[in-house]
Amino acid sequence: MSGFLWFNCPVNADVPLLGSASAGDLLRLLRDGVPRTRNELTAVTGLARSTVRARLDTLLDAGLVSDGGNEASTGGRPAGRFVFNARARVVLAAEVGATHATVAITDLTGAPLAVRRLEQDIADGPDAVLAGLVATWRSLLTEAELDSVRPAGVGIGLPGPVEHSTGRPNNPPIMPGWDGYDVPARVGAEFGVPVLVDNEVNLMALGEHRTCFPDAEHLIVVKVATGIGSGFISNGMLHRGAVGAAGDLGHILAPNAGDVPCRCGNTGCLEAVAGGPAIAASLRAGGIEAHTSADVVALVRAGNPEAGKAVREAGRTIGEVLATCVSMFNPSLIVVGGTVALAGEMLLAGVREAIYRRSLPLATGKLRIVPSQAGDDAGVLGAAAMVVEHVLSPAVVDRDLA
Amino acid sequence: MSGFLWFNCPVNADVPLLGSASAGDLLRLLRDGVPRTRNELTAVTGLARSTVRARLDTLLDAGLVSDGGNEASTGGRPAGRFVFNARARVVLAAEVGATHATVAITDLTGAPLAVRRLEQDIADGPDAVLAGLVATWRSLLTEAELDSVRPAGVGIGLPGPVEHSTGRPNNPPIMPGWDGYDVPARVGAEFGVPVLVDNEVNLMALGEHRTCFPDAEHLIVVKVATGIGSGFISNGMLHRGAVGAAGDLGHILAPNAGDVPCRCGNTGCLEAVAGGPAIAASLRAGGIEAHTSADVVALVRAGNPEAGKAVREAGRTIGEVLATCVSMFNPSLIVVGGTVALAGEMLLAGVREAIYRRSLPLATGKLRIVPSQAGDDAGVLGAAAMVVEHVLSPAVVDRDLA
Repeated sequence: MSGFLWFNCPVNADVPLLGSASAGDLLRLLRDGVPRTRNELTAVTGLARSTVRARLDTLLDAGLVSDGGNEASTGGRPAGRFVFNARARVVLAAEVGATHATVAITDLTGAPLAVRRLEQDIADGPDAVLAGLVATWRSLLTEAELDSVRPAGVGIGLPGPVEHSTGRPNNPPIMPGWDGYDVPARVGAEFGVPVLVDNEVNLMALGEHRTCFPDAEHLIVVKVATGIGSGFISNGMLHRGAVGAAGDLGHILAPNAGDVPCRCGNTGCLEAVAGGPAIAASLRAGGIEAHTSADVVALVRAGNPEAGKAVREAGRTIGEVLATCVSMFNPSLIVVGGTVALAGEMLLAGVREAIYRRSLPLATGKLRIVPSQAGDDAGVLGAAAMVVEHVLSPAVVDRDLA
Repeated sequence: MSGFLWFNCPVNADVPLLGSASAGDLLRLLRDGVPRTRNELTAVTGLARSTVRARLDTLLDAGLVSDGGNEASTGGRPAGRFVFNARARVVLAAEVGATHATVAITDLTGAPLAVRRLEQDIADGPDAVLAGLVATWRSLLTEAELDSVRPAGVGIGLPGPVEHSTGRPNNPPIMPGWDGYDVPARVGAEFGVPVLVDNEVNLMALGEHRTCFPDAEHLIVVKVATGIGSGFISNGMLHRGAVGAAGDLGHILAPNAGDVPCRCGNTGCLEAVAGGPAIAASLRAGGIEAHTSADVVALVRAGNPEAGKAVREAGRTIGEVLATCVSMFNPSLIVVGGTVALAGEMLLAGVREAIYRRSLPLATGKLRIVPSQAGDDAGVLGAAAMVVEHVLSPAVVDRDLA
């Protein structure tokens, strides 16, 4: 039994040793939105009264806490209450897809204050795309009369693998000019605040989890559009993987895909046989005019039986690749979103059919497979949640207030 | 954007709101093993001096903190220091495999004080197997002269899916009589302490992570023996899945497995074609006498080329099933253990070959595939770590001391 480095055992890794009763911790407590008096805060935290007073003063000065009215009088002078001020700062959030972007301003709970959708081609490169985002945030701030509110941070989702710790795209297959580009430096120079970057499907997963499925501890979100991707939540946390490549479903070799070429340069990738354009191509081969995911969805909605059949077959192919993931990851929930998912039950039926046929029975016993709830906003809501969780973490609050 | 339940957003889900400066928190701080004075604890926590004094008294009374000597004198009377007492309680840990068990007593850091290996057949059922564990713990406590030390908790790994929240096996394929059995009730009645139960390969993953690879945030441990299983660590935490079925590698359909029958009742399962007995069967078909994993390993070690080739081929088959997991989960590390892994590089070479051939390049760029470091003790070390992290968590400490 010798040779183990017991002192390496990270018993305290999840909780900072210091600052266990800092201003940041007091703010974390108040983020539930419940107004509390000084006495209540002293009782709950065990802090010295003078410490609570000093930390509240710091938070009041920063605007992060405000007057929450008086408690109901019990005879003496009623005590003042303090409440988290979610409008003290704004968050700038964006989800950038291959051909569209969703840009938003949110408050410090991640609730949207203004949203705009852009047509934007990721292949225009980082300078053009990021300048477009910056201009849109500035324009939204002005329109919503939020120019005077300080931004707390920026969150951006991009349609490829991202090294989250540096904010740089990592060998993204469909993003010419973006590999290794320092997104935080470019955008941080505009606003002077932290810029967090992640894969857009990871942020869709975070958005669905935080806003619609907070009780699902283990969840997979699948996006089916021009490309196909997925994001994992494990133990309530985003699972990014070692280099930000987790969930890259679209470029896994699909069963029976043959040598269909993929835009990434390989052949037989899942998205090359089951993405929106691939479904459209299969319809054209049968004499039906269709080019995009939107064309396919329109045909399904119009009741075209060939289109419905093609979407269901794409769902089966996606489900076959997901089946091994379900056996291994044992999620309680799979959420299916993306433009092709707008075709409705046809896609889900195919996904369900393949997963229930191929996955281990125990892993599917309590599995739900449902359509996206947050819809087009999932990614931008996830981007905002990522920023809020970072900038309001006690360590960051304490550093900012020091 | 309407319809989202913002108040559901679990901003504080990871940290308890109350007790942020409780006795349990003070103990968590001291678990790093560094002796500290009252003044140092007051300064670090921001607690009132009287609060620190009261909480230290509680911890001293419980024996969890002890005298850590005096600080170096600076002229005045030197102040006394307080230190975590890892010998205040013992942990009873066991990993139960199909035919063997490893039983241990550890201290409150999870470091082993006594270990014994048993021959034990899981198919004897829960009454016989658990009685064997209980008798072994009692015997080890006596031999190590630890009878007088109170147990803090019991941790048990079992060779099948376990619903961790209840400690009951969940449809385990090779454990007749165990389905739904209330393991914590049976063992808790003996010792009167919390009993935590998990899948043994999950606990191997926890053991490898906590003792040998604490810096690997995302890791997969694969056990190749009579059966084949795996355990995932995501963001440094065990990923158990929705019903404790995550990582059930052995019963995934293997490529080209045909209709080889598996002991679970299905056909074509990975462990039916690549587990130790399956490798032995393939050797017998070539006229070489072999029945168990140990026979196979002995042949490989004796330089038998057919045995080496068969183990490598099994490694390839395992690697092919793992390849999709690698693309999706993007681990930084795969640790290969279990009795067949004792054959050495042959198994790893096959696993590496298939994973590097089939997984996405980005997901394998920084991937290491290594043999088990904790070896036979990985599971029992993980069982102890699971118990320590539970019983020394601030919430549980505070409840116990209340």
